[in-house]
Amino acid sequence: MSPAVTDNARTGSDETPIAKRILIGEPLTSEELEGQLLPKRMALPIFASDALSSVAYAPQELLMILLLGGTAFLAFSPWVAAAVVALLIVVVLSYRQLIKAYPSGGGDYEVARTNLGERAGVVVAAALLVDYILTVAVSVASGVDNIISALPALDAWRVELAVGFVVLIILVNLRGVREASTAFAIPTYLFIGSVLVMIVTGLVRWALGDAPIADSAQYAVQAEDLSQVAVILLILRAFSSGCSALTGVEAVSNGVPAFRRPKVRNAQTTLVMMGSIAILMFAGLTMLALVAGVHYAEDPCHLVGFDCAAAVQPSLMAQVAAATFGGGSVLFFIIQAATAAVLLLAANTAFNGFPLLGSVLARDGYAPKALNTRGDRLVYSNGMIILGLAAALVLIVFQARLTTLIQLYIIGVFVSFSLGQLGMVKHWRRELRLLARSKSAERRGAYAGLLINALGATFTIVVLVIVTITKFTHGAWLVFLAIPVLSFLMIGVHRYYRDVEHEITMDDDVHFGASGDVAIVLVGTLQKPVAKAIDYALAAKHDKTIAVHIAVSADAARAVQDDWEFYRMPAPLLVIESPYRQYAAPLAQFIAQYRAKHGPSLMTVYLPQYIVGHWWETMLHNRRARRIAQQLMLVHGVQITLVPWLLDSSELIYGRRSRPLPGDDRAGRIPTYGLVSHTDDEQG
Amino acid sequence: MSPAVTDNARTGSDETPIAKRILIGEPLTSEELEGQLLPKRMALPIFASDALSSVAYAPQELLMILLLGGTAFLAFSPWVAAAVVALLIVVVLSYRQLIKAYPSGGGDYEVARTNLGERAGVVVAAALLVDYILTVAVSVASGVDNIISALPALDAWRVELAVGFVVLIILVNLRGVREASTAFAIPTYLFIGSVLVMIVTGLVRWALGDAPIADSAQYAVQAEDLSQVAVILLILRAFSSGCSALTGVEAVSNGVPAFRRPKVRNAQTTLVMMGSIAILMFAGLTMLALVAGVHYAEDPCHLVGFDCAAAVQPSLMAQVAAATFGGGSVLFFIIQAATAAVLLLAANTAFNGFPLLGSVLARDGYAPKALNTRGDRLVYSNGMIILGLAAALVLIVFQARLTTLIQLYIIGVFVSFSLGQLGMVKHWRRELRLLARSKSAERRGAYAGLLINALGATFTIVVLVIVTITKFTHGAWLVFLAIPVLSFLMIGVHRYYRDVEHEITMDDDVHFGASGDVAIVLVGTLQKPVAKAIDYALAAKHDKTIAVHIAVSADAARAVQDDWEFYRMPAPLLVIESPYRQYAAPLAQFIAQYRAKHGPSLMTVYLPQYIVGHWWETMLHNRRARRIAQQLMLVHGVQITLVPWLLDSSELIYGRRSRPLPGDDRAGRIPTYGLVSHTDDEQG
Repeated sequence: MSPAVTDNARTGSDETPIAKRILIGEPLTSEELEGQLLPKRMALPIFASDALSSVAYAPQELLMILLLGGTAFLAFSPWVAAAVVALLIVVVLSYRQLIKAYPSGGGDYEVARTNLGERAGVVVAAALLVDYILTVAVSVASGVDNIISALPALDAWRVELAVGFVVLIILVNLRGVREASTAFAIPTYLFIGSVLVMIVTGLVRWALGDAPIADSAQYAVQAEDLSQVAVILLILRAFSSGCSALTGVEAVSNGVPAFRRPKVRNAQTTLVMMGSIAILMFAGLTMLALVAGVHYAEDPCHLVGFDCAAAVQPSLMAQVAAATFGGGSVLFFIIQAATAAVLLLAANTAFNGFPLLGSVLARDGYAPKALNTRGDRLVYSNGMIILGLAAALVLIVFQARLTTLIQLYIIGVFVSFSLGQLGMVKHWRRELRLLARSKSAERRGAYAGLLINALGATFTIVVLVIVTITKFTHGAWLVFLAIPVLSFLMIGVHRYYRDVEHEITMDDDVHFGASGDVAIVLVGTLQKPVAKAIDYALAAKHDKTIAVHIAVSADAARAVQDDWEFYRMPAPLLVIESPYRQYAAPLAQFIAQYRAKHGPSLMTVYLPQYIVGHWWETMLHNRRARRIAQQLMLVHGVQITLVPWLLDSSELIYGRRSRPLPGDDRAGRIPTYGLVSHTDDEQG
Repeated sequence: MSPAVTDNARTGSDETPIAKRILIGEPLTSEELEGQLLPKRMALPIFASDALSSVAYAPQELLMILLLGGTAFLAFSPWVAAAVVALLIVVVLSYRQLIKAYPSGGGDYEVARTNLGERAGVVVAAALLVDYILTVAVSVASGVDNIISALPALDAWRVELAVGFVVLIILVNLRGVREASTAFAIPTYLFIGSVLVMIVTGLVRWALGDAPIADSAQYAVQAEDLSQVAVILLILRAFSSGCSALTGVEAVSNGVPAFRRPKVRNAQTTLVMMGSIAILMFAGLTMLALVAGVHYAEDPCHLVGFDCAAAVQPSLMAQVAAATFGGGSVLFFIIQAATAAVLLLAANTAFNGFPLLGSVLARDGYAPKALNTRGDRLVYSNGMIILGLAAALVLIVFQARLTTLIQLYIIGVFVSFSLGQLGMVKHWRRELRLLARSKSAERRGAYAGLLINALGATFTIVVLVIVTITKFTHGAWLVFLAIPVLSFLMIGVHRYYRDVEHEITMDDDVHFGASGDVAIVLVGTLQKPVAKAIDYALAAKHDKTIAVHIAVSADAARAVQDDWEFYRMPAPLLVIESPYRQYAAPLAQFIAQYRAKHGPSLMTVYLPQYIVGHWWETMLHNRRARRIAQQLMLVHGVQITLVPWLLDSSELIYGRRSRPLPGDDRAGRIPTYGLVSHTDDEQG
């Protein structure tokens, strides 16, 4: 079974409100997919912005944790930063291997699943899904933080701004990937350029003896007294916070299918370019912050002399920019704008990765099939909407607090890093066994791959352990809860689809020739919709056609019988009493009695049904027929035929469309439909 | 057309979750309705509690307004109270006439509609609907106020308590009227008894020179300086607030059909009993409050010496009871409990009146037919739920503030009073014309009726003018907005039903013999549900049966074609390409082409559909078939046949019910249903 599932009523392809067309654009044919692929210069902003934007918060979080121990601890920061850079290099090289070995875009998920088994794959997928959500949350929170650093008056609307940006990103992405990339390429390159200019300017000024000095350099820091163990823990915590610089490196490996050909080569080049720029910016920013004496505190009230009640603590980026270019300068605002923009772009990365992973999971039967349905614009709309809603929820729950969100973030990232690298180790070992008798060049390549990925696996596992130890009580436990829960859900979904598949696959059990075909037309009051249903039922030439009135009121039953005779209806009318004002049960009982007498029969129950033009009309009609249909479909050998009666209101809106043109129903509104009244049950 | 409409899925008669059975009780047959009728002793607590409970707040509001002018103004209170009593007598006598003339329970609505025309009737109905909502809100707010007066610690949960009581009342009422009356009779009689005992005790003590003194007698009152005009306005305001004692008098006239036979006589007797008791209690309580020197301020901070920040101002009832029996005495708590209980009973009155009026409006086509559907327990469940939700909303919006709610309340009450009485005047004048040649005794009776109702109309119109002038800026404008809005809605609904009726009534236009009957079976993947649909379609012996696959993916289309041949399916398969991943539009186009070639044909589209056992399973199946059905039903001459495929999960829950017993589906759960996948549209 491979059912493709459309999403909710708002995003499917068979109906398309005008508002949607304006927001999202004209629908595209499936063939237009190839035209949506990305050249490198466009792929970089899309897939690398996550990793690059990490430098907006990674140095800040690293220095912030060290500062908990007092300003003296800042002396450790070059070493901690160097460790982060070393790890970043290893991870970039590891992913370079992974892209080549698994270019299908499954990334860590596919690697883990193929090499470590279903469960590891599911765990990685769960970790990645959580990561994507947190990527959006962290990036948007940091972006808003940088906007507020430039415009402190906006502090009161922090959460509202964050949620607003998430909604904006959803809309941009529902338009499709290429248009988004065009609009988003400029800020990324502006960010890279302006931050590098700032780093060079600052360091040159420092070399010339005119070092930029941050405002916060004047504030002393209230430090905790730390035991020796606590000192080590603090340094490890600073390291693991700095590792947030690595987040997003995996995005390229998950996005390979969106690259232009040659996909693997292009993706690898983009990955290495991205890694180099990230290292340059991370090291440069950390160094410049140290030179400028930035004191960024987790709790700004620990800064002696800083009015933490009234003022907003600017982000590290804002402090460095203000120190280098001056707080009110044009360049300061450019840096802040570019930083905020690239962070929002990073959030955008997740809107490429999450739906792609979701579709892969749906294809493999681990997620609802709806995630594998492309919307009008060829993007996986459902995945985007789920991601956006989840991220908005996280932002609201954690009030867009960056540090808290980063605690959650790193865990999931390193779970998938570690399992992905472990899978690659296994992959190379299998390759080496297969290559046992091949040329030494190929074997050397495989050995190099094994070495790199083994190094990557070791490092990332060590970091995962450190992160777990140092972050668990700081909120990471939530992720430790979410990943297994998601994993179990995915395994459950998989089992469900397998069972259904087993149940409905064609086999020798299938036979044709259902017998004793009877039509039952449900009659409330004798009105035109009922007459139409009778006409249609007779046209189908069933073996027998019976009209049935379920009588909850003797008066109404008599009226129907009288009308039936008066209009000389061409089918017999049967009245069934229903003292409990039920409809489905007496009908089911009648069917059972009929079968007991006449043998097994296929029953087709005709239900007249109103089609209305406005949503509010549904409130004025009943839902009884719909409920009768639901109940009767539980009885074996019963099928339901809905005979529509188009009220004038529906005609006014949709016109008489007996000859619709191809695609003409795309422009129309989806009709709401009520159901034709069955009968009257007033007794009062 | 007189379709009876069931309500939402929770309250209909064809499905009944177990929780509902426990909360609401076993369903009753329609014949059991007569057994639910009320004897007088039971009718009194149900229909009179509204009017009687008014004495819990009417004296308080009357004295409170006068106190705005200072304690000296309390001297006016006996005169103002006397005016209220006089009005009450006139109104009771007027309604006595109304009950006799219009015993069907339409009350003011029916009188106004019959005598003053459709518009007046609709306005009265709107006013009454608003009144019922505010009866619930005011009564519950006052009940909670009296509970808090006895237990001040509950002050923090005022709104929560109020909403909780509304929910409780909804549940009690959904069980049906008689059981509710049994449970509710005791507190009413306890209230009447205990308050009368208190009044007698207090006045006897006063006569003996040992007058009860209220705590608040010690507090001086900050008064406003008033001009002469303001003095008159203040007295008029106090009068109109005191008129809240009249609210609820109309309840009996709206509830006549719920009385035992002879309905009119019993209802009239109950009305007069109720009026006498109300007058006794209103006058007694006002007098006792004056004797005890109760100072009840609109803003308790205007009481000099009262710590308005920390303490809660007890209700007038609580102050009088504390003065008479002592604040911690058992009798004090009995009075407070009985007062709170009777106020909740008054809220309950509205749960009899609103649904009855709703059903009358629905019967006349002014409200959704759903309001005229009796639930399992023979009560109009939908009306009850709407009323409860509206009252809870009002309580939340106005934070359960009694005085604000009473401002809103009185307007609506006097709008319906006035129009009802005016209608009665017209009624008697017509009667007198008809009786022009009858016996003088009958004419005398009619003259007496005319006199009484003319007096009632004059008084109530005068009060309405006073109330409007004095309360408009105090919130009553909201009601002046709500009544016309509701009236317009009702007229719109009426017009809608009339148009639909016109559209679907049988006429000469009806003819039989639809021709060219074609079955189209929609095929996604060839699986058992599709095979079943083909089998059923063939069994119906349509002129032609065609299987159609809408191809959004060439691979999937090929697979279906291969399977089709492999299993030698007994119907031809047609593949239609759909580059925009649409389903309904290409099918509609095919139907149009087919008709262009073969002439007009009736099309039956077969859609296989999953029936699942759990709500969450619907998330794992698509809703495409449902949407295709909605779209195709807009095409003329197309009907939809849903072929259910019961997944094992549904079997586990519902069992194989090929032979359901009568009513056996009442105990089951309503099935949720997903739809069989149509096809796979992955292209990625």
